[in-house]
Amino acid sequence: MSLPDKFIVNLCPTGMVPRRAKVPNVPITPAEIAKDVRRCYEAGAGMVHLHARDDDEEPTWRAERFTEIVDQVVSLTPDIVVVVTTSGRNWSELEKRAASLTVDSAARPEMASLTLGSMNFASGPSVNSPETIAGLAAAMQERGIVPELEIFDVGMANYANYLISRGVLKPPYYFNILFGSIGTAEVSAANAAAMLASLPQPSTWAFAGIGRFQLAANTLALSLGGHVRVGLEDNPYFDWSSKNATTNARLVERIVRIAREMGREPATPQETREIIGLRQMVRS
Amino acid sequence: MSLPDKFIVNLCPTGMVPRRAKVPNVPITPAEIAKDVRRCYEAGAGMVHLHARDDDEEPTWRAERFTEIVDQVVSLTPDIVVVVTTSGRNWSELEKRAASLTVDSAARPEMASLTLGSMNFASGPSVNSPETIAGLAAAMQERGIVPELEIFDVGMANYANYLISRGVLKPPYYFNILFGSIGTAEVSAANAAAMLASLPQPSTWAFAGIGRFQLAANTLALSLGGHVRVGLEDNPYFDWSSKNATTNARLVERIVRIAREMGREPATPQETREIIGLRQMVRS
Repeated sequence: MSLPDKFIVNLCPTGMVPRRAKVPNVPITPAEIAKDVRRCYEAGAGMVHLHARDDDEEPTWRAERFTEIVDQVVSLTPDIVVVVTTSGRNWSELEKRAASLTVDSAARPEMASLTLGSMNFASGPSVNSPETIAGLAAAMQERGIVPELEIFDVGMANYANYLISRGVLKPPYYFNILFGSIGTAEVSAANAAAMLASLPQPSTWAFAGIGRFQLAANTLALSLGGHVRVGLEDNPYFDWSSKNATTNARLVERIVRIAREMGREPATPQETREIIGLRQMVRS
Repeated sequence: MSLPDKFIVNLCPTGMVPRRAKVPNVPITPAEIAKDVRRCYEAGAGMVHLHARDDDEEPTWRAERFTEIVDQVVSLTPDIVVVVTTSGRNWSELEKRAASLTVDSAARPEMASLTLGSMNFASGPSVNSPETIAGLAAAMQERGIVPELEIFDVGMANYANYLISRGVLKPPYYFNILFGSIGTAEVSAANAAAMLASLPQPSTWAFAGIGRFQLAANTLALSLGGHVRVGLEDNPYFDWSSKNATTNARLVERIVRIAREMGREPATPQETREIIGLRQMVRS
């Protein structure tokens, strides 16, 4: 294995869980998110995984809010690869989960998250039924949106292969592999090996880690030639011993410093598209 | 898995292969080695894996030369954990391979390398017969020297367990796991997982990588909570794209910078002894 030069930083700035009271720098409003994404882009982020919140910080599925966010993000960072969530954490109806795909903006999302199974989070079950997965996948294909395949365990990688064999998923394949949630795969060499061995070829893959496992998952991916997802959605602290507040930019800057020591540079958005196999695009 | 704070830097400054013509900064004479070890100790090295060379750069097994080297090393760096090689790369007789164990110095070696099997290097076979392994292990035990268990493949980890079951090896167990030699295990998540799953409990383990794989193996170990072996013995270049000459200190400094970004500090020699389970000692 020789390490590739470029690695993709998939920024996850907001998520559905962090609130200002505990995570003071989590960006909430469209303007805050756009400003934060710009800072992280300058630090090396090539793509951004967006969630929407109302002004009171509550997660929302409404397409109008996603449109506002995407509009403001690409107005400050025209180049960046835009990914929207289809998370079912707070609602389950397919039409709500697919609402983010209908963003009506000059800047349509190029990718959207697709979680390939049900699992338990610490707070309770997260249900993604086969019908929901198929429905979201179809809605993405209709719109030319490439799935960000979210997998938390080896079974979800197996399910990707099943969906590929049924023609439900089509290339390109980008896997975001999340370690360290209490009910799913922990960060270990054995789990990383099993995950990577299960992926269809060719795939692009990134490691994400929940909470204190973000840094280990990210650096593990760098060592194994993969890509990273990083941000306050997954991890509120820079340093889990002090638990001081941090920012998305500081988290991105750290993983970029580490990668540079390893001879790996963050991929620009255009390089990100090339690596994943997205269509190139230039926004004005 | 939560990452431990401290990690051990096992410096391998010289080895048997690198020559000045291609690796201009490889330390050869006892004075050069001692000076280089001191610089690397200041950068974070807690232990040093020593080979001996004559002034013409040829490897030697002679105890007198090892004594000179150890004397000068501990004169500049009294605290450091001293490990001597018992490599059979250039000679095979047990008495030559065990000569380094007889170093007659105020500073006896605390550890010595013990390779747990035969394999092919790129240049040809490296033979460590069961009799040689048992003979070296016995010679170490007689002198209270703890083995630095060198393993290049999963079978060698299995052999460690066999030797433990026979009472040939006794705790503490320190494994240096070497990836990336052309004839043995390459750096991959699957191989790392298999290696770690095979180790006896409890063990201390470090990842080393041959040539261009040093950095990936080292960072992989950092991500998985392990320790590292680093130096010009294994890897002549800081950067394999430019292939410019580098130094042991620069290699150590880089892995320490990466580790610090991950919240891990290099272990002092005394902390190194504690982690491995060596007797504490203070040299004057």
